[in-house]
Amino acid sequence: MPVVQIHFLEGRSYEQKKKLVSKVTEAICESLEVQPQQVRIILDEMPKTHYSIGGFLISERDPRPKS
Amino acid sequence: MPVVQIHFLEGRSYEQKKKLVSKVTEAICESLEVQPQQVRIILDEMPKTHYSIGGFLISERDPRPKS
Amino acid sequence: MPVVQIHFLEGRSYEQKKKLVSKVTEAICESLEVQPQQVRIILDEMPKTHYSIGGFLISERDPRPKS
Amino acid sequence: MPVVQIHFLEGRSYEQKKKLVSKVTEAICESLEVQPQQVRIILDEMPKTHYSIGGFLISERDPRPKS
Amino acid sequence: MPVVQIHFLEGRSYEQKKKLVSKVTEAICESLEVQPQQVRIILDEMPKTHYSIGGFLISERDPRPKS
Amino acid sequence: MPVVQIHFLEGRSYEQKKKLVSKVTEAICESLEVQPQQVRIILDEMPKTHYSIGGFLISERDPRPKS
Repeated sequence: MPVVQIHFLEGRSYEQKKKLVSKVTEAICESLEVQPQQVRIILDEMPKTHYSIGGFLISERDPRPKS
Repeated sequence: MPVVQIHFLEGRSYEQKKKLVSKVTEAICESLEVQPQQVRIILDEMPKTHYSIGGFLISERDPRPKS
Repeated sequence: MPVVQIHFLEGRSYEQKKKLVSKVTEAICESLEVQPQQVRIILDEMPKTHYSIGGFLISERDPRPKS
Repeated sequence: MPVVQIHFLEGRSYEQKKKLVSKVTEAICESLEVQPQQVRIILDEMPKTHYSIGGFLISERDPRPKS
Repeated sequence: MPVVQIHFLEGRSYEQKKKLVSKVTEAICESLEVQPQQVRIILDEMPKTHYSIGGFLISERDPRPKS
Repeated sequence: MPVVQIHFLEGRSYEQKKKLVSKVTEAICESLEVQPQQVRIILDEMPKTHYSIGGFLISERDPRPKS
């Protein structure tokens, strides 16, 4: 039954995303005692221009020009 | 008042998305007894590399190389 | 594959919720050409004190005292 | 602690997004009495083809051809 | 058009929630140049047992017994 | 940076929720190469009357009377 949504900053490799869903599914099965087939994960990659902490976009910490 | 968010795999046509929001709005109005104007729907298309079931990305079922 | 989340105001009957998920699942299957078993729906009921339009909580339109 | 997610239509400038997260963080700190560093905001820009009101995609109000 | 969802820890007063939606709506109108009536906000209050930072539930920092 | 939201059916113990956030945080740190302090997790427990698969509420599989 578990439905998971993970927001994280853009820039990870395909291999990292594969590892992410595999490891998180394992963690959920172990703690909630469900079967892997019951676990669905949605990955949401955020550009640095679309996430803020403390009122500043993460891209503000990044000198490159922003489109 | 109802606010709906629908996550689904990429690859549908514009016509299908038109039909989707029309039919879902109708279904909600009928069951919750609200007016169409009160129903807002957000569509989130997911690449196959961003959705997993059972610990595997959907793209893993797809032989094409992944960027 | 579709994962749906529906936010709506509290106060509907159990029968309405049954009808809601049935009708919305039907609408999605028809437009996205998927099987019912692939459609998951999460219902989120909102108290009037937890939803606002135009800067005012819906409960503000409701004279009863708020806890 | 507050985690905020804002969905809005595509087309705003980078400056507007900077102002958005700054102003919203300020508003949250003032009302919930938390520190700016505790406030995280996720921005989700929606194409007009991915948001509907009253059963119609916003793009339907826009004569340009849709891909 | 903007749809906002705010997750924050339980325990705020009704007055704080009124101020929160009013101030956040104002902030959004000012930065995205929309009308108040276009802004919808969903408030999600989280018990301390349902939010974690660094792998620990916030309630773990709270000596009271947990049900 | 990662913000995680996990929807799952009601009925788990406090210990299971502690284990869940600990294990999921670990899994995310390992795959996305971030620090535990950067990972926030929101837990959303769903009553069986608020989650459906294939057009039927999970509670429909449960003979007990529904309020």
